[in-house]
Amino acid sequence: MDKKQRIAIIGSGSWATALAKMLMHNVEGFNWYFRSEDNIKLFKKYKHNPKYLRAVEFETERIDFYSDINEIAENSDILIFVIPSAFLKDAVKDLTVDISQKFIVSAIKGIVPDDNTIVGEFFHERFNVPFESIGVIAGPCHAEEVARELLSYLTIACPDIKKARQFAFNLECPFIRTHISEDIYGTEYSSVIKNIISLASGIAHGLRYGDNFQAVLISNGIQEIKRFVDTVHPITRDIKSSAYLGDLLVTGYSQFSRNRTFGMMIGKGYSTRSAMLEMHMVAEGYYAVKCIKEINERYNVNMPITDAVYNILYENISPSIELRLLTEHLR
Amino acid sequence: MDKKQRIAIIGSGSWATALAKMLMHNVEGFNWYFRSEDNIKLFKKYKHNPKYLRAVEFETERIDFYSDINEIAENSDILIFVIPSAFLKDAVKDLTVDISQKFIVSAIKGIVPDDNTIVGEFFHERFNVPFESIGVIAGPCHAEEVARELLSYLTIACPDIKKARQFAFNLECPFIRTHISEDIYGTEYSSVIKNIISLASGIAHGLRYGDNFQAVLISNGIQEIKRFVDTVHPITRDIKSSAYLGDLLVTGYSQFSRNRTFGMMIGKGYSTRSAMLEMHMVAEGYYAVKCIKEINERYNVNMPITDAVYNILYENISPSIELRLLTEHLR
Repeated sequence: MDKKQRIAIIGSGSWATALAKMLMHNVEGFNWYFRSEDNIKLFKKYKHNPKYLRAVEFETERIDFYSDINEIAENSDILIFVIPSAFLKDAVKDLTVDISQKFIVSAIKGIVPDDNTIVGEFFHERFNVPFESIGVIAGPCHAEEVARELLSYLTIACPDIKKARQFAFNLECPFIRTHISEDIYGTEYSSVIKNIISLASGIAHGLRYGDNFQAVLISNGIQEIKRFVDTVHPITRDIKSSAYLGDLLVTGYSQFSRNRTFGMMIGKGYSTRSAMLEMHMVAEGYYAVKCIKEINERYNVNMPITDAVYNILYENISPSIELRLLTEHLR
Repeated sequence: MDKKQRIAIIGSGSWATALAKMLMHNVEGFNWYFRSEDNIKLFKKYKHNPKYLRAVEFETERIDFYSDINEIAENSDILIFVIPSAFLKDAVKDLTVDISQKFIVSAIKGIVPDDNTIVGEFFHERFNVPFESIGVIAGPCHAEEVARELLSYLTIACPDIKKARQFAFNLECPFIRTHISEDIYGTEYSSVIKNIISLASGIAHGLRYGDNFQAVLISNGIQEIKRFVDTVHPITRDIKSSAYLGDLLVTGYSQFSRNRTFGMMIGKGYSTRSAMLEMHMVAEGYYAVKCIKEINERYNVNMPITDAVYNILYENISPSIELRLLTEHLR
């Protein structure tokens, strides 16, 4: 992998747009996949993503847009997937190009539904991509702040640490610092579970628990994340690093987090269904809690916060009862 | 130490008042020291603290008020000190009663100035109190939320774990959960350094760093706390517990923290002096950073955030330059 390799972004949301902004600082040109031809036309016309981070202008002549997954895969060496995990399988269902020699990067922060695997495992099993060619982009990062060029830190994980370092150069710029890690399992799982903790934090807020309790909940949240990732993939890692704790903090303490907002509505008494309708969008934590709960049937890690959120969302147990029970398990 | 022992609160601020509220749930009566006779009169007249948490009503007939430090010490078995650390020496300068057999509890969250010791060491050295009779009340706890009876968690630390447990019973009530610990050094130091980190977080906010950076700063903050307390008092502790990480979070992410507000003014360009005048109160972190910096001369722990705050407040280095340098050290 050298710097001349052609990079593709697969996805058109706000995080995809933020990553594209970083690439613009480092590479001459790159490929970008949009599902909708119309949005590509609008993008070219207005020089910005028509739907997300619209303040970020792009030199569109440096971007090759694609709406065919095989074409973009054919013409790229590095594929960054940055779409909701719920849509990943659908997005690659027609992918027939051999991608086993390419570098595959997950910026998804989600679990592949049904399979209950991290994104890297999915590409390994389905497309024969070796783990040494799987990367993860992790770290505390609201896309909106990248748009505003506020200093942010990303962690690039890959079992082949050299590849992690080389890929990181594509994102570094005056407002992006990068660190590298070997831990694709830990960073990916942690980024998934943090959405569950944020959802719990929203539920507690909706039920009028205060900041004192919130601090206890988040502290217990990072302990729960550590227990899980240390069991599922036991390597030496410092869970207090930005890629794990930082990522939890930026979501758990954000007023703008979808997961937190969704949880708050649940805490205030909305049904799961009506909270979803009201929000017009998907809170990743809603799917994540089901996946993690199922995965944890194999491992039996003590996960009181995940269990509580699962019981509330999928077993219809009252949020106030479930939270009261949860308070007994926190330390 | 049994439950019949008479407890004294030394201090009249909001945290003292919150602790008094907890005691009211557990003991028939207790002693309370106010420096000002006038405030005692007003307290008795209005049945609440005239200056802090005024919404909390007290059955004053269950409280014996004192304004003489020797009298209250004479008539009490457990002394809870809850005054700003800067005033501790002055408060006990006339104390001649032998308190070496009493249980001394620090709810101060500060370092004793000049001596540069934790409160427990001070009582050990000055009043011959054995460490087994020194306690610390730690944990993420805004007094205002205790006043509103919002569920909060406290950690009671004492090298004699039995005494910690027995004392904890005095605070437990429907809205207060307690846990116990042996770690009087770690909890006290951590509660002090968190004010420095919060001050740094305020400076960053004042300089328009965003939430992504904030999450990195706080993650690095708890790493810095761990490095320091593990060096100064190396025992097994989980720094992710509420007493350490939780305490940092509740302050670092609070809009109402004095340390954060003070830091924000510094970040926005106020001088140290004018920020203090403007706030009409003392940010503990301002004193803490000097103490910790001095103590760390013995230990040489890597403390980039503490160093940066010290340089800004005491060496007159520009906050924007110092923060930019700091960003190089964060991970």
